[in-house]
Amino acid sequence: MKKIITTMLVLGSTTLSHAQVQTPASDSAVIANIYNEVMLHGECYENLRYLCKNIGHRLAGSESAQKAIDWGKTVLEKSAPGHVFLMPVEVPHWTRGSFEFGGYTIDGMQKEIALTALGGSVGTEGKRINAEVVEVKSFDELKALGEEAVKGKIVFFNKPLDATLINTGAAYGGGYPIRGQGPSEAAKLGAVACLIRSLTLADDNYPHTGATNYEEGVRRIPAAALSAVASRQLSQDLKKNAKLTFSLQLSCEAFERTMQANVIAEIPGTEFPGEYITVGGHLDSWDIGEGAHDDGTGIVQSIEMIRALQAIGYQPKRTIRAVLFINEEFGNDGGETYARICKEKGLVHVAAIESDGGGFTPVGFNCDLSDTQYEMTQSWLPLLEPYNLFRFRRGGSGVDIRPLKDDRIALFGLNVDGQRYFDYHHTNNDRFENVNKRELELGAAAMAALVYLIDQSGIPTQK
Amino acid sequence: MKKIITTMLVLGSTTLSHAQVQTPASDSAVIANIYNEVMLHGECYENLRYLCKNIGHRLAGSESAQKAIDWGKTVLEKSAPGHVFLMPVEVPHWTRGSFEFGGYTIDGMQKEIALTALGGSVGTEGKRINAEVVEVKSFDELKALGEEAVKGKIVFFNKPLDATLINTGAAYGGGYPIRGQGPSEAAKLGAVACLIRSLTLADDNYPHTGATNYEEGVRRIPAAALSAVASRQLSQDLKKNAKLTFSLQLSCEAFERTMQANVIAEIPGTEFPGEYITVGGHLDSWDIGEGAHDDGTGIVQSIEMIRALQAIGYQPKRTIRAVLFINEEFGNDGGETYARICKEKGLVHVAAIESDGGGFTPVGFNCDLSDTQYEMTQSWLPLLEPYNLFRFRRGGSGVDIRPLKDDRIALFGLNVDGQRYFDYHHTNNDRFENVNKRELELGAAAMAALVYLIDQSGIPTQK
Repeated sequence: MKKIITTMLVLGSTTLSHAQVQTPASDSAVIANIYNEVMLHGECYENLRYLCKNIGHRLAGSESAQKAIDWGKTVLEKSAPGHVFLMPVEVPHWTRGSFEFGGYTIDGMQKEIALTALGGSVGTEGKRINAEVVEVKSFDELKALGEEAVKGKIVFFNKPLDATLINTGAAYGGGYPIRGQGPSEAAKLGAVACLIRSLTLADDNYPHTGATNYEEGVRRIPAAALSAVASRQLSQDLKKNAKLTFSLQLSCEAFERTMQANVIAEIPGTEFPGEYITVGGHLDSWDIGEGAHDDGTGIVQSIEMIRALQAIGYQPKRTIRAVLFINEEFGNDGGETYARICKEKGLVHVAAIESDGGGFTPVGFNCDLSDTQYEMTQSWLPLLEPYNLFRFRRGGSGVDIRPLKDDRIALFGLNVDGQRYFDYHHTNNDRFENVNKRELELGAAAMAALVYLIDQSGIPTQK
Repeated sequence: MKKIITTMLVLGSTTLSHAQVQTPASDSAVIANIYNEVMLHGECYENLRYLCKNIGHRLAGSESAQKAIDWGKTVLEKSAPGHVFLMPVEVPHWTRGSFEFGGYTIDGMQKEIALTALGGSVGTEGKRINAEVVEVKSFDELKALGEEAVKGKIVFFNKPLDATLINTGAAYGGGYPIRGQGPSEAAKLGAVACLIRSLTLADDNYPHTGATNYEEGVRRIPAAALSAVASRQLSQDLKKNAKLTFSLQLSCEAFERTMQANVIAEIPGTEFPGEYITVGGHLDSWDIGEGAHDDGTGIVQSIEMIRALQAIGYQPKRTIRAVLFINEEFGNDGGETYARICKEKGLVHVAAIESDGGGFTPVGFNCDLSDTQYEMTQSWLPLLEPYNLFRFRRGGSGVDIRPLKDDRIALFGLNVDGQRYFDYHHTNNDRFENVNKRELELGAAAMAALVYLIDQSGIPTQK
C-alpha cells in the first residue's frame, strides 16, 4: 500500500495538488520507498554472488571479462528491456601466468615468500633472477644510494602505509607512487628487478597487486608486491645477512590490445530526455581473488539502482544510465572511451555517480562540484541523514566518471566506511564472503536516492 | 617530538602562556596524539586476541569468567599499577549443558536443525519433548489462537527482524520482547516448549542465544532459538505437514548464585580527584563463540583508553576509571552493584562512557544528557569530525552504566556502524577473526578523546 501511495506522489497523481507533490514529505516518502525496496527485495547481493562465484576475477582483456560483459548485459536487460547496449572499448591484454616464485636461503634454510607480480610487469623469461637486495623506504633514499649501490641488484621498497591517517584512501595514496614509479626509478639506477611492500594497512600474508607504470624510455624490469608479512620477514633476514641472494621468477606476458566493451542500460527521461545521469562502477577486476569489493559491489549497486527505481514505478524526468565500465584497473579505457563518445554525440550530462570504494556502509558522497552545486547538496542532507548519510565531502568522485568532467556536470563518489577496504583490495582475499549484504544494499539505496534527488531538481551549472 | 610538544601543552609547561594552553589547537593536538598512540602502538587488538583465544567465552558465574577477571586485573595493573581493585558482585550461575537437540521427521526423513537454548531456559530433564508445533508471528496472533490451539504444543515465534530499519539496534529492539516474554506467554496458554527465530538480520545457520525472562508465577517451559535457516526450513515443512512432531532436548541447569567481581582501574585526578569519569564494557559474554564483539571489544577499548592516556603522559584533572563490568548479559549485576556502591561511598560522577555495540567503526556517541550538556558536546564536534565522529545522537548509552544515572552525570555510549553486529551477536560466530584491528582501535581512540574533552572542561549539571 505504502508503495502505491508514494509512487502516486512522485508521478503527480491528479488526486493530489501540485503543492503536495513538491513537499519535502513526498521526497522523503520516495526515498523511504527506495530503501524499503532495496532492503526487502534487493537483488544486488545475489547478483554479486553470481559475478564472484560463477565468473570470478575478470581482468580487462581476459575471457572472463568477456563473460562478465555478457552477464551484465543479460542482467540489465531485465530492468531496462530494449535499452541495453554495448560500447566497444579497446583494452590491454596482459597475463600474470601460472608460475611465480620469490625466495632466498637464510640460516641454511630455503624460504619462499608470498609475492605476486604488479600489473603490467614484464616476466623473467622463464628464468630466475638471482641478485642481492637493496632495501629502501623512499625515492630519496634510493637516489641517495646511487647507481653504485643499486646496479645489478633488486630494489626492495619497504614502506608501510601511514596507519595514523584515518582516511585509508589517503594512506593508500601515500604509497601509490612507489607502486607506479618504483620499478622505473630502480631501473634508472641499474636495478634488475623491483619488489615493493604491498599497499595495505593489514598485517597479513596476502600480496596486493595493482598497476605499475613503466616510464617511457626506461628499461622495464620485473616488479612484484610482497605481502606485509613477507616484507617484514625479508627485512629481518636482510639485517641478518645483507648479502643474501633473492630469487625471483615471474611468468607475465603482454599481448596485443583487444576489443571489449562498456555495458550501458538507460531509462529514458520523460521531461528532459536529453539530460543524462550516469551511475556506474567498473566491471573489470584484478586477476586474483573475485573482484568483490573492487569493484563487483559498484557494478551490482549500479544495476540495483536501475532495478529499484523501476520496481517502485519511478519514471525519471531525465535519462538515467547504469554503466558497467571496462578496464578501470589498467588504463581507464572504459571511462575515457565513454566520455569521448558522449562528447562526440553531444550528450549533456547533469551528473555522474560512481561506487568504487568497496561495498561497505555508506556515510555520504565525495563530490566534485561548484559552490552553487554544493549548496544544493546541503539542502538534501535532512532527507539523507535518517539513512546515516552525514555528508557531502568535497574532493574525489571516481576514476571511471572523471573523464566526463566539464563545466556543468556534478560528479559524486559513494563515500563508504573504508577501514577494511585495503585489507582486501587487489588480493586473493577480495571475495564475496567478505561483503556484508546490508552494507552492500545500503550503498545501492544511497545511490538510487541521490539519483532521485538529482533527477527531481536538476543541477545548477558550474558557472 | 610531536608527542613531547603536545604533552607539554596539556600539562601547562611554563614556557607557554595560559592562553596558548587553552586554545582549541592544543585540544586538537592532544586528540591527534591519542589517535597516533592507539593506531601505531595500540595493544587492544592483541589483548582481544588473548581474551578470545586463551580464555574464550565467559558467561557470568563460570570458571572462564573468573579467569577473565584475573586476566583483566593483570592487564590493567600494567597501566595503573597499585590502582586496580576488584568489587565483589553476586551473579547467577546457569549452564547450557553439552547436549542440545531439535528436529523432526518430514517426507520420511529425519531432520536435525540448528538451535540453542535461550539463556536461563530450563532443561528437558534428560528427555525429549515431542509435540506438534504452532507457528505464530506475534503475541496477538498467539492470543487469538487461544488455549485450545496451543495446549500441549510447542509455540514457534517466527518473526524476522525488520530489515527496513537502518538502525540495526532498533530492528533488534523490535524482536527483543519475543525472546524475553515469548516463553511465558506461550506457557500461559499451556504450551510445553517455545522456539523463536533468532534475533538476527543475517540469513545463516547460526542460532543466537540471549536471556529469556520467565514471568513470576508462570510455568517455566524450555525455550530455544532457531537459526534463520532452520526457522525457514521448519516453517516450510509445517506448510507440508502441520501435524509434524518436533523433538526438543535441552540440558540446561541452574545453580546457586555465586560471587564474582567487577574489575576497576583508576588514574587519580590531579585537580578534582573527587570527580569521576567511568569508562567500561562488560567482561562476561554468552557461553558460545568467543564474546568478541559482545563485548570483548568494549573491554579492550576501555583498557586501551587508560593505557593510551598514560602512554602520552596525560595527567587527568579528574579521576578516570576503566571498569570491566561482570554480568551484563544475565541481569546486569555488575552495573547495578557498581552504581549502588558508588552511591554508598558518595562518589560524584561527572560522566560515564560505555562501548557495547561491537568493535566496529565509530561514528559518534549515543548520549543521555541535559540540553546544556548536549550543547557542550556540539562544541566538541569540530575536534572530532576529522576522525569521522559526526554526531552525538540523543538516546541510549549503555546497560552497564545506566544505573549510575542521576541529575548530574552525562552518559555516553560509543555509536558504531552496527550493520554487522547482529550477524555475530550471541552466536558461535562472535569470534576474534570477525573484528577488524583498525575499526577496534578507532573506537578506543574515540573513547579516550571523549574522556580527554570531558576531563578538560568538566560537565555542567543536568539542572
